[in-house]
Amino acid sequence: MPTIDPARVLSDLRTLRSFGAYKTGVHRPTFSKVDMEARHWFAARLAEAGLEPKIDGIGSVFGYSRASGPKLLTGSHLESQNYAGWLDGPLGCVYGLEAARALGEDAACADLGVDVAAWCDEEGHFGSFLGSRSFVGLLSEEEIDAGKNRYDGTPLRDALAAAGLAGRPRERLQAGRYRGYFEAHIEQGDTLETTGLKIGVVTAIVAIWQYRLTATGEQNHAGTTSMARRRDAGLALVRLLAAIDRRFPEVAGPRSVWTCGRISLDPGAPSIIPGRAEALFQLRDADPAVLDRMQAELHRLIEEANASGPCPIALEVLGQSTPAVMDESFQQAIEAAAAVHCPGEAMRMPSGAGHDAQYLAREMPAAMLFVPSIGGISHHWTENTSDEDIVLGAQVYCDAVARMLRS
Amino acid sequence: MPTIDPARVLSDLRTLRSFGAYKTGVHRPTFSKVDMEARHWFAARLAEAGLEPKIDGIGSVFGYSRASGPKLLTGSHLESQNYAGWLDGPLGCVYGLEAARALGEDAACADLGVDVAAWCDEEGHFGSFLGSRSFVGLLSEEEIDAGKNRYDGTPLRDALAAAGLAGRPRERLQAGRYRGYFEAHIEQGDTLETTGLKIGVVTAIVAIWQYRLTATGEQNHAGTTSMARRRDAGLALVRLLAAIDRRFPEVAGPRSVWTCGRISLDPGAPSIIPGRAEALFQLRDADPAVLDRMQAELHRLIEEANASGPCPIALEVLGQSTPAVMDESFQQAIEAAAAVHCPGEAMRMPSGAGHDAQYLAREMPAAMLFVPSIGGISHHWTENTSDEDIVLGAQVYCDAVARMLRS
Repeated sequence: MPTIDPARVLSDLRTLRSFGAYKTGVHRPTFSKVDMEARHWFAARLAEAGLEPKIDGIGSVFGYSRASGPKLLTGSHLESQNYAGWLDGPLGCVYGLEAARALGEDAACADLGVDVAAWCDEEGHFGSFLGSRSFVGLLSEEEIDAGKNRYDGTPLRDALAAAGLAGRPRERLQAGRYRGYFEAHIEQGDTLETTGLKIGVVTAIVAIWQYRLTATGEQNHAGTTSMARRRDAGLALVRLLAAIDRRFPEVAGPRSVWTCGRISLDPGAPSIIPGRAEALFQLRDADPAVLDRMQAELHRLIEEANASGPCPIALEVLGQSTPAVMDESFQQAIEAAAAVHCPGEAMRMPSGAGHDAQYLAREMPAAMLFVPSIGGISHHWTENTSDEDIVLGAQVYCDAVARMLRS
Repeated sequence: MPTIDPARVLSDLRTLRSFGAYKTGVHRPTFSKVDMEARHWFAARLAEAGLEPKIDGIGSVFGYSRASGPKLLTGSHLESQNYAGWLDGPLGCVYGLEAARALGEDAACADLGVDVAAWCDEEGHFGSFLGSRSFVGLLSEEEIDAGKNRYDGTPLRDALAAAGLAGRPRERLQAGRYRGYFEAHIEQGDTLETTGLKIGVVTAIVAIWQYRLTATGEQNHAGTTSMARRRDAGLALVRLLAAIDRRFPEVAGPRSVWTCGRISLDPGAPSIIPGRAEALFQLRDADPAVLDRMQAELHRLIEEANASGPCPIALEVLGQSTPAVMDESFQQAIEAAAAVHCPGEAMRMPSGAGHDAQYLAREMPAAMLFVPSIGGISHHWTENTSDEDIVLGAQVYCDAVARMLRS
């Protein structure tokens, strides 16, 4: 069985933290100076591991195995959210690198190949999953032309040129090269921590259904318009959101989540009754039947509101992804590896967050492994996982890689 | 009895509409080129009426009577909200001007004096009731130094200089000069229209109590954070606003209004649970006891929310004005005038909107008269009042002026 080097794993992760260190986390936006330094450092580490390194035209870093036998694609991402955690992304990249090294150092695994990818911009500074979507053929040149940094508006083309990547070809999946894809990640929630378990075996990456709710009323003077005569679009939206809050627990699944992340009232002045109000609302679940049930309830509540209220509410679907189901035999391989290194400490769970694996899963069997997040904290510089859990996760991951390749 | 000239009243109002005409309304922001043109035109009309015209250092226009007898101060404002109605402000200015003319043309009223004021920036482009507050000594030089245009940030001092007003003295109320103050205005609501009446006799200008509601939760990932573990500040605020919506009708008075004009969720992203949420909320009523009752209920609902919810909600008082009660004998004078010109078609009502009269009322007896607003529309270019109602209102106003001065 291939054995990892715990010190090497922790050292690589700490080195990656030094690129854009911020308090105990990192600030490493896509294509920033520190981000490009991290990519070049990681490519050099891949080369040291005997892999053929490459940074492609969208900024993804690859290390290709020279082994002759079956191959697995591994990886995650290197850039961070703004002022965020040190392991979100790098953990999966270093686990892949360590698996390549550990299998290479184990004579019994010499024929097995582990490719490593660090997908560019999973965190969406310039778009949505640019690296993994490019790799599976879902990113057009037109979308790259139109891409802009969501914070400062820098065109994606300019950022690519400044990073020295203009004109480079983009890597594409070679048909038939892989047995599958395997990505490790921090859980980002507190399920493992609160249950005292160590390994999350991801069953599916949840689908996200996103909506814009728009109420249309009548803008008017907040002093001279009687309550009876008002058509307050903001109030109509508040009433609907409160109804969703009351009703959804009855139709949702045990792991469903629903979120209103933004509300805006127009014109937004203290003394003006809002004539228009808008909310962004989303549902997540791994089960399409549950999503259907929640969406039907949403339609019902809107109809109810429109039947009784003076401000029509419209629903616009902004996106409806499908859940990315993880491969069953790969899930069993992770469970078998966990049974060796931490018996009874693995559990199956969906991923509530999106990951590059959801795009790779369209082309090949895919799997994900989670390690615990301390306090469930994510997308914040205090995000962390204990060294023991990082090391245990790496060993289970590496063992699982060998099992997936031998299956 | 002094008699108005209907054609003169309508003609003056239509001329004022030509300064910054926008569709059937006007766009005449304070100190814009068209606004200054309107002020100079109005000053010239005041002079033609035999009044001594003056534009003071804050931009208010005055016409001082040379009559020897008792005097009344009349007026309203000339600037408009952006792309708003033609009568909001000008109606009260022209009624004052017409009263000065009609009384001057009536030998029986030759001793009575009508001063006319067009208070600058009632609409708040640069501050709050600048002209009337300056006149009663409630506007400091420091506040003028700090004033900025709320839309484009232009300093008030620069705007005054560009308007040719820098260095001019500001007019101040001469103690003992007036019997009182009388302002006409469009109703801005639909009470007169829906009751089929023609004259609103204002009992009081309501008090406005303004609050900022702030909920503090925990910003987190909208996919990985279970519903049970969330501390969603946006949801906490929605629940409170829904509770206010359910409870307030039971504690409010018959004419109370309450409004949430702005909601903001922080950080406001579709996939992030809001860690902080803020709403601007206001109450209006003419009765302090009703306001006290509503505020007590607001406190109770917040306590209830804080006892059960995971996101503490804080209440910050942004302002608590006192109602401006209109003079009883002046109200009777308006009713007596209405009984002559439109018997049975006047009603007493509070003003839900703020007016310059609320500042003048601190220094002398004050009164307001409302004419109907078609459809109750206000602060929109479609705002309107029928010619018949404008003319009838002017005659009642003028008759009431004479009664107030003779009382």
